[in-house]
Amino acid sequence: MRLCRFNSNRLGVVQGDQVFDVTEALDVLPSVSYPLPQVDPLIANLDKVRARIDELLPAASSCALADVTLLSPVANPGKLVAAPVNYRKHLEEARADAEIHHNNQVAEIQRVGLFLKATSSLVGPSQGVALRHTDRRNDHEIELAVVIGKAGSRISRADAWSHVAGYCIGLDMTVRGPEERSLRKSIDSYSVLGPWLVTADEIADATQLDFWLTVNGEPRQSANTRDLVIGIPELIEFASAFYTLHEGDVLYTGTPEGVGPVQPGDVIVANIEGIGEMRVNVSKA
Amino acid sequence: MRLCRFNSNRLGVVQGDQVFDVTEALDVLPSVSYPLPQVDPLIANLDKVRARIDELLPAASSCALADVTLLSPVANPGKLVAAPVNYRKHLEEARADAEIHHNNQVAEIQRVGLFLKATSSLVGPSQGVALRHTDRRNDHEIELAVVIGKAGSRISRADAWSHVAGYCIGLDMTVRGPEERSLRKSIDSYSVLGPWLVTADEIADATQLDFWLTVNGEPRQSANTRDLVIGIPELIEFASAFYTLHEGDVLYTGTPEGVGPVQPGDVIVANIEGIGEMRVNVSKA
Repeated sequence: MRLCRFNSNRLGVVQGDQVFDVTEALDVLPSVSYPLPQVDPLIANLDKVRARIDELLPAASSCALADVTLLSPVANPGKLVAAPVNYRKHLEEARADAEIHHNNQVAEIQRVGLFLKATSSLVGPSQGVALRHTDRRNDHEIELAVVIGKAGSRISRADAWSHVAGYCIGLDMTVRGPEERSLRKSIDSYSVLGPWLVTADEIADATQLDFWLTVNGEPRQSANTRDLVIGIPELIEFASAFYTLHEGDVLYTGTPEGVGPVQPGDVIVANIEGIGEMRVNVSKA
Repeated sequence: MRLCRFNSNRLGVVQGDQVFDVTEALDVLPSVSYPLPQVDPLIANLDKVRARIDELLPAASSCALADVTLLSPVANPGKLVAAPVNYRKHLEEARADAEIHHNNQVAEIQRVGLFLKATSSLVGPSQGVALRHTDRRNDHEIELAVVIGKAGSRISRADAWSHVAGYCIGLDMTVRGPEERSLRKSIDSYSVLGPWLVTADEIADATQLDFWLTVNGEPRQSANTRDLVIGIPELIEFASAFYTLHEGDVLYTGTPEGVGPVQPGDVIVANIEGIGEMRVNVSKA
Protein backbone atom coordinates (compact mmCIF):
# COMPACT_ATOMS: atom_id res chain seq x y z
CA MET A 1 0.00 0.00 0.00
CA ARG A 2 1.20 3.53 -0.80
CA LEU A 3 0.12 5.94 1.91
CA CYS A 4 0.44 9.69 1.57
CA ARG A 5 -0.34 12.71 3.72
CA PHE A 6 -1.69 15.42 1.49
CA ASN A 7 -3.20 18.90 1.44
CA SER A 8 -4.33 19.77 5.01
CA ASN A 9 -3.17 16.57 6.70
CA ARG A 10 -5.48 14.29 4.73
CA LEU A 11 -4.63 10.61 4.47
CA GLY A 12 -4.48 9.14 1.00
CA VAL A 13 -3.86 5.88 -0.79
CA VAL A 14 -1.93 6.32 -4.03
CA GLN A 15 -2.91 4.09 -6.94
CA GLY A 16 -1.50 4.98 -10.34
CA ASP A 17 -1.96 8.71 -10.88
CA GLN A 18 -4.83 8.98 -8.38
CA VAL A 19 -5.03 9.66 -4.64
CA PHE A 20 -7.94 8.06 -2.79
CA ASP A 21 -9.01 10.02 0.30
CA VAL A 22 -9.18 7.73 3.34
CA THR A 23 -8.79 10.42 6.01
CA GLU A 24 -11.63 8.87 7.98
CA ALA A 25 -9.30 5.96 8.82
CA LEU A 26 -7.44 8.32 11.16
CA ASP A 27 -10.44 8.04 13.50
CA VAL A 28 -8.99 4.75 14.78
CA LEU A 29 -6.00 6.58 16.27
CA PRO A 30 -6.17 6.76 20.07
CA SER A 31 -6.83 10.15 21.60
CA VAL A 32 -3.80 11.77 23.14
CA SER A 33 -3.17 14.21 25.93
CA TYR A 34 -0.18 15.60 27.81
CA PRO A 35 2.45 14.25 27.79
CA LEU A 36 2.44 13.38 24.10
CA PRO A 37 3.50 9.91 22.95
CA GLN A 38 7.06 9.47 21.70
CA VAL A 39 5.91 7.58 18.64
CA ASP A 40 4.30 8.56 15.39
CA PRO A 41 0.62 7.81 15.95
CA LEU A 42 -0.05 6.71 12.37
CA ILE A 43 2.91 4.33 12.19
CA ALA A 44 2.35 2.97 15.69
CA ASN A 45 -1.20 2.05 14.71
CA LEU A 46 -0.56 1.15 11.10
CA ASP A 47 -2.24 -2.26 11.22
CA LYS A 48 -5.45 -0.80 12.61
CA VAL A 49 -5.36 2.10 10.15
CA ARG A 50 -4.81 -0.26 7.21
CA ALA A 51 -7.72 -2.45 8.29
CA ARG A 52 -9.96 0.62 8.34
CA ILE A 53 -8.59 1.75 4.97
CA ASP A 54 -9.52 -1.60 3.47
CA GLU A 55 -13.11 -0.91 4.50
CA LEU A 56 -13.14 2.67 3.24
CA LEU A 57 -11.25 2.32 -0.03
CA PRO A 58 -14.00 0.89 -2.25
CA ALA A 59 -16.15 3.98 -1.68
CA ALA A 60 -13.37 6.56 -1.34
CA SER A 61 -13.33 9.63 -3.57
CA SER A 62 -10.19 10.31 -5.56
CA CYS A 63 -8.35 13.16 -7.18
CA ALA A 64 -5.33 13.48 -9.43
CA LEU A 65 -2.00 12.97 -7.73
CA ALA A 66 -0.66 15.86 -9.76
CA ASP A 67 -3.12 18.22 -8.05
CA VAL A 68 -2.32 17.52 -4.38
CA THR A 69 0.24 18.93 -1.97
CA LEU A 70 2.39 16.10 -0.63
CA LEU A 71 3.55 16.39 2.99
CA SER A 72 5.94 14.06 4.79
CA PRO A 73 4.15 10.69 5.05
CA VAL A 74 5.51 10.37 8.59
CA ALA A 75 4.28 13.42 10.48
CA ASN A 76 5.79 12.87 13.93
CA PRO A 77 9.00 10.87 13.87
CA GLY A 78 10.74 10.81 17.23
CA LYS A 79 14.11 10.90 15.56
CA LEU A 80 15.70 11.03 12.16
CA VAL A 81 18.75 8.78 12.18
CA ALA A 82 21.15 9.02 9.26
CA ALA A 83 24.11 7.05 7.97
CA PRO A 84 27.11 9.05 6.75
CA VAL A 85 29.43 7.94 3.94
CA ASN A 86 27.63 4.63 3.47
CA TYR A 87 28.54 4.14 -0.18
CA ARG A 88 32.22 3.51 -0.94
CA LYS A 89 32.43 5.87 -3.90
CA HIS A 90 30.82 8.70 -1.91
CA LEU A 91 33.47 8.24 0.79
CA GLU A 92 36.11 8.55 -1.92
CA GLU A 93 34.60 11.73 -3.39
CA ALA A 94 34.19 13.25 0.09
CA ARG A 95 37.85 12.65 0.87
CA ALA A 96 38.98 14.02 -2.50
CA ASP A 97 36.95 17.24 -2.46
CA ALA A 98 37.93 19.99 0.00
CA GLU A 99 34.56 21.63 -0.59
CA ILE A 100 32.98 18.55 0.99
CA HIS A 101 35.43 17.65 3.75
CA HIS A 102 36.43 21.19 4.88
CA ASN A 103 39.62 19.80 6.42
CA ASN A 104 37.65 17.52 8.71
CA GLN A 105 38.57 13.87 8.92
CA VAL A 106 36.20 11.81 6.77
CA ALA A 107 36.29 8.44 8.44
CA GLU A 108 34.49 5.25 7.49
CA ILE A 109 30.95 4.77 8.74
CA GLN A 110 32.13 1.96 11.03
CA ARG A 111 34.10 4.63 12.91
CA VAL A 112 31.79 7.64 12.57
CA GLY A 113 28.62 5.75 13.40
CA LEU A 114 25.27 7.39 12.80
CA PHE A 115 24.13 10.95 13.25
CA LEU A 116 20.84 12.72 13.95
CA LYS A 117 18.87 15.21 11.89
CA ALA A 118 16.47 17.53 13.71
CA THR A 119 12.83 16.54 13.32
CA SER A 120 12.12 20.25 12.85
CA SER A 121 13.92 19.96 9.51
CA LEU A 122 11.36 17.50 8.11
CA VAL A 123 9.23 18.43 5.10
CA GLY A 124 7.33 16.71 2.34
CA PRO A 125 8.24 17.06 -1.32
CA SER A 126 5.63 19.73 -2.10
CA GLN A 127 6.98 21.98 0.64
CA GLY A 128 10.35 22.22 -1.05
CA VAL A 129 13.79 22.99 0.28
CA ALA A 130 14.59 26.54 1.39
CA LEU A 131 18.34 27.13 1.41
CA ARG A 132 20.16 28.97 4.17
CA HIS A 133 23.81 29.99 4.20
CA THR A 134 23.80 30.33 0.43
CA ASP A 135 27.34 31.69 0.60
CA ARG A 136 28.28 28.04 1.18
CA ARG A 137 27.71 24.97 -0.97
CA ASN A 138 24.33 23.31 -0.37
CA ASP A 139 24.18 19.75 -1.67
CA HIS A 140 21.52 17.19 -2.56
CA GLU A 141 21.87 13.67 -1.16
CA ILE A 142 19.30 11.06 -2.20
CA GLU A 143 18.84 8.14 0.18
CA LEU A 144 16.56 5.19 0.72
CA ALA A 145 14.65 6.04 3.94
CA VAL A 146 13.50 3.20 6.17
CA VAL A 147 10.57 3.81 8.54
CA ILE A 148 10.62 1.84 11.78
CA GLY A 149 7.29 0.13 12.46
CA LYS A 150 7.98 -1.81 15.66
CA ALA A 151 9.94 -0.40 18.57
CA GLY A 152 13.05 -2.20 19.67
CA SER A 153 16.37 -1.94 21.42
CA ARG A 154 19.40 -4.12 20.77
CA ILE A 155 17.74 -5.54 17.70
CA SER A 156 19.76 -8.26 15.99
CA ARG A 157 20.35 -8.04 12.26
CA ALA A 158 18.41 -11.29 11.94
CA ASP A 159 15.32 -9.66 13.46
CA ALA A 160 15.78 -6.27 11.85
CA TRP A 161 13.44 -6.61 8.88
CA SER A 162 10.49 -7.30 11.19
CA HIS A 163 10.96 -3.79 12.62
CA VAL A 164 10.48 -2.08 9.24
CA ALA A 165 7.10 -0.50 8.44
CA GLY A 166 8.02 0.70 4.99
CA TYR A 167 10.13 2.88 2.75
CA CYS A 168 10.29 6.40 1.38
CA ILE A 169 12.63 8.50 -0.67
CA GLY A 170 14.76 10.71 1.57
CA LEU A 171 16.73 13.81 0.69
CA ASP A 172 19.44 14.52 3.23
CA MET A 173 20.10 18.12 2.24
CA THR A 174 23.42 19.41 3.50
CA VAL A 175 25.19 22.71 3.87
CA ARG A 176 28.92 22.11 3.62
CA GLY A 177 31.21 23.48 6.29
CA PRO A 178 33.28 22.48 9.28
CA GLU A 179 30.43 21.87 11.73
CA GLU A 180 29.12 18.50 12.85
CA ARG A 181 26.65 16.81 10.55
CA SER A 182 23.81 17.00 13.08
CA LEU A 183 23.89 20.81 12.73
CA ARG A 184 24.62 21.24 9.01
CA LYS A 185 21.97 18.74 7.96
CA SER A 186 19.25 19.98 10.33
CA ILE A 187 18.35 23.29 8.76
CA ASP A 188 14.58 23.78 8.38
CA SER A 189 13.44 21.83 5.26
CA TYR A 190 16.75 19.93 4.89
CA SER A 191 15.13 16.54 5.56
CA VAL A 192 12.73 15.73 2.76
CA LEU A 193 10.64 12.57 3.05
CA GLY A 194 8.23 11.38 0.40
CA PRO A 195 6.49 11.12 -1.85
CA TRP A 196 4.56 8.52 0.17
CA LEU A 197 5.18 5.55 2.43
CA VAL A 198 5.40 2.24 0.59
CA THR A 199 4.60 -0.46 3.12
CA ALA A 200 7.21 -3.15 3.55
CA ASP A 201 5.04 -5.87 2.02
CA GLU A 202 5.25 -4.08 -1.35
CA ILE A 203 9.05 -4.10 -1.60
CA ALA A 204 10.26 -7.64 -2.19
CA ASP A 205 13.93 -6.80 -1.68
CA ALA A 206 15.06 -3.40 -0.42
CA THR A 207 18.69 -4.40 -0.89
CA GLN A 208 18.49 -4.33 -4.69
CA LEU A 209 16.81 -1.03 -5.59
CA ASP A 210 17.98 1.25 -8.36
CA PHE A 211 17.70 4.94 -7.60
CA TRP A 212 18.71 8.21 -9.19
CA LEU A 213 18.47 11.97 -8.81
CA THR A 214 18.49 14.81 -11.34
CA VAL A 215 18.77 18.59 -10.93
CA ASN A 216 17.01 20.58 -13.66
CA GLY A 217 16.95 17.39 -15.69
CA GLU A 218 20.71 16.83 -15.43
CA PRO A 219 21.69 13.40 -14.02
CA ARG A 220 23.62 13.74 -10.75
CA GLN A 221 23.31 10.57 -8.68
CA SER A 222 22.59 7.03 -9.82
CA ALA A 223 23.20 3.90 -7.76
CA ASN A 224 21.69 0.75 -6.31
CA THR A 225 21.11 -0.08 -2.65
CA ARG A 226 23.19 -3.25 -3.12
CA ASP A 227 26.23 -0.94 -2.87
CA LEU A 228 25.50 0.12 0.73
CA VAL A 229 28.62 -0.33 2.89
CA ILE A 230 26.50 -1.18 5.95
CA GLY A 231 23.21 -2.73 4.92
CA ILE A 232 19.76 -2.06 6.32
CA PRO A 233 19.64 -4.88 8.91
CA GLU A 234 23.12 -3.99 10.12
CA LEU A 235 22.21 -0.28 10.39
CA ILE A 236 19.21 -1.18 12.54
CA GLU A 237 21.37 -3.41 14.72
CA PHE A 238 24.02 -0.70 15.01
CA ALA A 239 21.56 2.10 15.88
CA SER A 240 19.58 0.08 18.38
CA ALA A 241 22.75 -0.90 20.21
CA PHE A 242 22.80 2.75 21.31
CA TYR A 243 19.16 3.74 21.56
CA THR A 244 15.65 2.42 21.29
CA LEU A 245 14.15 2.77 17.84
CA HIS A 246 10.52 3.83 18.16
CA GLU A 247 7.59 3.51 15.78
CA GLY A 248 7.94 6.26 13.22
CA ASP A 249 11.67 6.80 13.62
CA VAL A 250 13.22 7.23 10.20
CA LEU A 251 16.57 5.84 9.11
CA TYR A 252 18.21 7.66 6.19
CA THR A 253 20.51 4.93 4.91
CA GLY A 254 23.18 7.05 3.23
CA THR A 255 23.87 8.64 -0.14
CA PRO A 256 25.98 7.44 -3.05
CA GLU A 257 28.49 9.38 -5.13
CA GLY A 258 27.44 12.33 -7.23
CA VAL A 259 26.42 14.75 -4.49
CA GLY A 260 26.51 18.30 -5.75
CA PRO A 261 25.29 21.83 -5.23
CA VAL A 262 21.81 23.20 -5.73
CA GLN A 263 20.73 26.81 -6.11
CA PRO A 264 17.47 28.65 -5.50
CA GLY A 265 15.23 28.00 -8.49
CA ASP A 266 16.54 24.48 -9.09
CA VAL A 267 14.22 21.50 -9.37
CA ILE A 268 15.32 18.17 -7.88
CA VAL A 269 13.71 14.98 -9.14
CA ALA A 270 14.38 11.85 -7.10
CA ASN A 271 13.33 8.31 -8.01
CA ILE A 272 13.69 5.00 -6.21
CA GLU A 273 12.65 1.72 -7.84
CA GLY A 274 9.50 0.34 -6.23
CA ILE A 275 8.67 3.63 -4.49
CA GLY A 276 8.22 6.20 -7.24
CA GLU A 277 9.31 9.69 -8.04
CA MET A 278 9.23 13.00 -6.25
CA ARG A 279 9.86 16.53 -7.42
CA VAL A 280 11.27 19.10 -4.98
CA ASN A 281 11.68 22.79 -5.67
CA VAL A 282 14.63 24.65 -4.22
CA SER A 283 14.25 28.22 -2.97
CA LYS A 284 16.05 30.61 -0.64
CA ALA A 285 14.85 30.89 2.96
CA MET B 1 8.23 29.45 39.94
CA ARG B 2 9.70 25.98 40.18
CA LEU B 3 7.66 23.52 38.13
CA CYS B 4 8.17 19.79 38.31
CA ARG B 5 6.62 16.74 36.64
CA PHE B 6 6.34 14.02 39.22
CA ASN B 7 5.03 10.50 39.85
CA SER B 8 2.57 9.61 37.06
CA ASN B 9 2.87 12.83 35.07
CA ARG B 10 1.51 15.07 37.81
CA LEU B 11 2.36 18.77 37.70
CA GLY B 12 3.88 20.25 40.83
CA VAL B 13 5.12 23.53 42.22
CA VAL B 14 8.21 23.15 44.39
CA GLN B 15 8.47 25.36 47.45
CA GLY B 16 11.16 24.51 49.99
CA ASP B 17 11.02 20.77 50.64
CA GLN B 18 7.39 20.45 49.52
CA VAL B 19 5.68 19.75 46.19
CA PHE B 20 2.25 21.29 45.70
CA ASP B 21 0.05 19.32 43.31
CA VAL B 22 -1.37 21.59 40.60
CA THR B 23 -2.06 18.89 37.99
CA GLU B 24 -5.48 20.39 37.36
CA ALA B 25 -3.76 23.33 35.65
CA LEU B 26 -2.96 21.00 32.75
CA ASP B 27 -6.65 21.22 31.83
CA VAL B 28 -5.89 24.52 30.09
CA LEU B 29 -3.74 22.75 27.51
CA PRO B 30 -5.43 22.56 24.10
CA SER B 31 -6.62 19.15 22.96
CA VAL B 32 -4.42 17.58 20.32
CA SER B 33 -4.96 15.13 17.50
CA TYR B 34 -2.98 13.78 14.57
CA PRO B 35 -0.59 15.15 13.52
CA LEU B 36 0.88 16.05 16.90
CA PRO B 37 2.25 19.53 17.54
CA GLN B 38 6.02 20.04 17.21
CA VAL B 39 6.18 21.93 20.49
CA ASP B 40 6.06 20.93 24.12
CA PRO B 41 2.44 21.62 25.10
CA LEU B 42 3.28 22.73 28.65
CA ILE B 43 6.02 25.15 27.62
CA ALA B 44 4.05 26.48 24.64
CA ASN B 45 1.19 27.36 26.99
CA LEU B 46 3.23 28.29 30.03
CA ASP B 47 1.60 31.66 30.62
CA LYS B 48 -1.88 30.13 30.66
CA VAL B 49 -0.76 27.24 32.86
CA ARG B 50 0.90 29.63 35.33
CA ALA B 51 -2.22 31.78 35.53
CA ARG B 52 -4.24 28.67 36.39
CA ILE B 53 -1.60 27.55 38.89
CA ASP B 54 -1.89 30.90 40.66
CA GLU B 55 -5.58 30.17 41.16
CA LEU B 56 -5.02 26.59 42.33
CA LEU B 57 -1.99 26.98 44.54
CA PRO B 58 -3.62 28.37 47.70
CA ALA B 59 -5.77 25.24 48.04
CA ALA B 60 -3.31 22.71 46.60
CA SER B 61 -2.32 19.65 48.60
CA SER B 62 1.36 19.02 49.12
CA CYS B 63 3.75 16.20 49.85
CA ALA B 64 7.42 15.94 50.68
CA LEU B 65 9.77 16.51 47.75
CA ALA B 66 11.87 13.63 49.06
CA ASP B 67 8.97 11.24 48.49
CA VAL B 68 8.20 11.93 44.84
CA THR B 69 9.57 10.55 41.58
CA LEU B 70 10.93 13.40 39.50
CA LEU B 71 10.54 13.15 35.71
CA SER B 72 11.95 15.50 33.11
CA PRO B 73 10.14 18.83 33.61
CA VAL B 74 9.95 19.16 29.83
CA ALA B 75 8.09 16.10 28.60
CA ASN B 76 8.06 16.64 24.84
CA PRO B 77 10.99 18.70 23.60
CA GLY B 78 11.21 18.79 19.81
CA LYS B 79 14.96 18.76 19.96
CA LEU B 80 17.81 18.67 22.43
CA VAL B 81 20.55 20.96 21.18
CA ALA B 82 23.94 20.78 22.87
CA ALA B 83 27.14 22.79 22.85
CA PRO B 84 30.41 20.85 22.73
CA VAL B 85 33.65 22.02 24.36
CA ASN B 86 32.13 25.29 25.53
CA TYR B 87 34.46 25.81 28.51
CA ARG B 88 38.10 26.51 27.70
CA LYS B 89 39.54 24.15 30.32
CA HIS B 90 37.31 21.30 29.14
CA LEU B 91 38.62 21.79 25.59
CA GLU B 92 42.13 21.53 26.99
CA GLU B 93 41.41 18.33 28.93
CA ALA B 94 39.64 16.80 25.92
CA ARG B 95 42.67 17.48 23.72
CA ALA B 96 45.09 16.12 26.32
CA ASP B 97 43.27 12.87 27.09
CA ALA B 98 43.20 10.11 24.44
CA GLU B 99 40.40 8.42 26.35
CA ILE B 100 38.28 11.47 25.59
CA HIS B 101 39.37 12.40 22.04
CA HIS B 102 39.89 8.88 20.59
CA ASN B 103 42.14 10.33 17.88
CA ASN B 104 39.36 12.56 16.61
CA GLN B 105 40.05 16.22 16.07
CA VAL B 106 38.74 18.26 19.01
CA ALA B 107 38.07 21.62 17.46
CA GLU B 108 36.77 24.79 19.07
CA ILE B 109 33.03 25.18 19.36
CA GLN B 110 33.13 28.01 16.82
CA ARG B 111 34.21 25.38 14.28
CA VAL B 112 32.29 22.33 15.53
CA GLY B 113 29.03 24.15 16.07
CA LEU B 114 26.23 22.47 17.97
CA PHE B 115 25.07 18.88 18.01
CA LEU B 116 21.82 17.05 18.69
CA LYS B 117 20.89 14.54 21.38
CA ALA B 118 18.00 12.18 20.67
CA THR B 119 14.81 13.11 22.52
CA SER B 120 14.41 9.37 23.22
CA SER B 121 17.41 9.72 25.54
CA LEU B 122 15.60 12.14 27.87
CA VAL B 123 14.89 11.18 31.49
CA GLY B 124 14.25 12.90 34.78
CA PRO B 125 16.58 12.55 37.75
CA SER B 126 14.56 9.85 39.51
CA GLN B 127 14.70 7.60 36.46
CA GLY B 128 18.47 7.42 36.64
CA VAL B 129 21.09 6.72 34.02
CA ALA B 130 21.43 3.16 32.66
CA LEU B 131 24.86 2.64 31.11
CA ARG B 132 25.43 0.82 27.85
CA HIS B 133 28.77 -0.13 26.33
CA THR B 134 30.30 -0.45 29.78
CA ASP B 135 33.49 -1.76 28.15
CA ARG B 136 34.07 1.88 27.27
CA ARG B 137 34.36 4.96 29.46
CA ASN B 138 31.01 6.56 30.31
CA ASP B 139 31.34 10.13 31.57
CA HIS B 140 29.23 12.64 33.46
CA GLU B 141 28.92 16.16 32.07
CA ILE B 142 26.95 18.75 34.08
CA GLU B 143 25.50 21.64 32.10
CA LEU B 144 23.15 24.55 32.54
CA ALA B 145 20.12 23.67 30.38
CA VAL B 146 18.11 26.48 28.82
CA VAL B 147 14.49 25.82 27.84
CA ILE B 148 13.18 27.77 24.86
CA GLY B 149 9.83 29.43 25.59
CA LYS B 150 9.13 31.36 22.40
CA ALA B 151 9.76 29.97 18.94
CA GLY B 152 12.13 31.81 16.69
CA SER B 153 14.44 31.59 13.74
CA ARG B 154 17.43 33.84 13.08
CA ILE B 155 17.14 35.25 16.58
CA SER B 156 19.64 38.00 17.33
CA ARG B 157 21.68 37.79 20.51
CA ALA B 158 20.00 41.02 21.60
CA ASP B 159 16.59 39.33 21.46
CA ALA B 160 17.73 35.95 22.73
CA TRP B 161 16.79 36.29 26.40
CA SER B 162 13.15 36.91 25.49
CA HIS B 163 13.05 33.40 23.98
CA VAL B 164 14.03 31.71 27.26
CA ALA B 165 11.28 30.08 29.36
CA GLY B 166 13.54 28.90 32.13
CA TYR B 167 16.40 26.75 33.31
CA CYS B 168 17.18 23.24 34.50
CA ILE B 169 20.18 21.18 35.40
CA GLY B 170 21.26 19.01 32.49
CA LEU B 171 23.47 15.95 32.48
CA ASP B 172 24.93 15.27 29.05
CA MET B 173 25.99 11.69 29.67
CA THR B 174 28.54 10.44 27.17
CA VAL B 175 30.06 7.18 26.11
CA ARG B 176 33.57 7.83 24.81
CA GLY B 177 34.59 6.49 21.43
CA PRO B 178 35.24 7.52 17.86
CA GLU B 179 31.62 8.07 16.78
CA GLU B 180 29.92 11.41 16.31
CA ARG B 181 28.56 13.06 19.41
CA SER B 182 24.95 12.81 18.26
CA LEU B 183 25.23 9.01 18.54
CA ARG B 184 27.41 8.61 21.62
CA LYS B 185 25.38 11.07 23.67
CA SER B 186 21.94 9.78 22.61
CA ILE B 187 21.82 6.45 24.40
CA ASP B 188 18.53 5.92 26.27
CA SER B 189 18.72 7.86 29.59
CA TYR B 190 21.88 9.80 28.60
CA SER B 191 20.08 13.17 28.66
CA VAL B 192 19.00 13.95 32.20
CA LEU B 193 16.92 17.08 32.79
CA GLY B 194 15.79 18.23 36.19
CA PRO B 195 15.10 18.46 38.97
CA TRP B 196 12.47 21.02 37.90
CA LEU B 197 12.06 24.00 35.61
CA VAL B 198 12.96 27.32 37.22
CA THR B 199 11.16 29.99 35.23
CA ALA B 200 13.33 32.73 33.79
CA ASP B 201 11.92 35.42 36.08
CA GLU B 202 13.50 33.65 39.08
CA ILE B 203 17.07 33.72 37.74
CA ALA B 204 18.36 37.28 37.80
CA ASP B 205 21.53 36.51 35.86
CA ALA B 206 22.10 33.12 34.24
CA THR B 207 25.59 34.17 33.18
CA GLN B 208 26.96 34.12 36.74
CA LEU B 209 25.83 30.79 38.23
CA ASP B 210 28.07 28.54 40.29
CA PHE B 211 27.57 24.84 39.69
CA TRP B 212 29.20 21.60 40.70
CA LEU B 213 28.88 17.84 40.45
CA THR B 214 29.98 15.01 42.72
CA VAL B 215 30.12 11.24 42.23
CA ASN B 216 29.64 9.22 45.42
CA GLY B 217 30.39 12.41 47.33
CA GLU B 218 33.69 13.04 45.54
CA PRO B 219 33.96 16.48 43.88
CA ARG B 220 34.40 16.15 40.11
CA GLN B 221 33.24 19.32 38.36
CA SER B 222 32.98 22.86 39.71
CA ALA B 223 32.64 25.98 37.59
CA ASN B 224 30.62 29.11 36.90
CA THR B 225 28.59 29.92 33.80
CA ARG B 226 30.63 33.09 33.40
CA ASP B 227 33.34 30.87 31.91
CA LEU B 228 31.24 29.78 28.92
CA VAL B 229 33.20 30.28 25.69
CA ILE B 230 30.00 31.07 23.75
CA GLY B 231 27.39 32.59 26.04
CA ILE B 232 23.68 31.84 26.15
CA PRO B 233 22.46 34.63 23.84
CA GLU B 234 25.17 33.81 21.32
CA LEU B 235 24.30 30.09 21.42
CA ILE B 236 20.66 30.93 20.69
CA GLU B 237 21.72 33.20 17.82
CA PHE B 238 24.07 30.51 16.47
CA ALA B 239 21.52 27.68 16.68
CA SER B 240 18.65 29.65 15.20
CA ALA B 241 20.79 30.68 12.24
CA PHE B 242 20.44 27.02 11.21
CA TYR B 243 17.03 25.98 12.46
CA THR B 244 13.91 27.25 14.13
CA LEU B 245 13.95 26.88 17.89
CA HIS B 246 10.53 25.74 19.07
CA GLU B 247 8.80 26.04 22.43
CA GLY B 248 10.22 23.30 24.62
CA ASP B 249 13.47 22.82 22.74
CA VAL B 250 16.29 22.44 25.25
CA LEU B 251 19.77 23.88 24.89
CA TYR B 252 22.48 22.09 26.87
CA THR B 253 25.06 24.86 27.12
CA GLY B 254 28.22 22.79 27.57
CA THR B 255 30.24 21.24 30.35
CA PRO B 256 33.33 22.48 32.16
CA GLU B 257 36.50 20.59 33.01
CA GLY B 258 36.44 17.64 35.36
CA VAL B 259 34.45 15.18 33.26
CA GLY B 260 35.11 11.64 34.37
CA PRO B 261 33.84 8.09 34.39
CA VAL B 262 30.87 6.65 36.24
CA GLN B 263 30.09 3.02 36.99
CA PRO B 264 26.90 1.14 37.76
CA GLY B 265 26.06 1.77 41.41
CA ASP B 266 27.44 5.30 41.43
CA VAL B 267 25.38 8.25 42.64
CA ILE B 268 25.73 11.57 40.86
CA VAL B 269 24.71 14.75 42.67
CA ALA B 270 24.45 17.90 40.56
CA ASN B 271 23.81 21.40 41.81
CA ILE B 272 23.34 24.71 40.03
CA GLU B 273 22.99 27.97 41.95
CA GLY B 274 19.44 29.31 41.77
CA ILE B 275 18.04 26.00 40.52
CA GLY B 276 18.78 23.43 43.19
CA GLU B 277 20.17 19.97 43.47
CA MET B 278 19.41 16.64 41.86
CA ARG B 279 20.53 13.13 42.63
CA VAL B 280 20.87 10.58 39.86
CA ASN B 281 21.57 6.89 40.30
CA VAL B 282 23.72 5.07 37.77
CA SER B 283 22.91 1.49 36.78
CA LYS B 284 23.68 -0.85 33.91
CA ALA B 285 21.13 -1.19 31.10
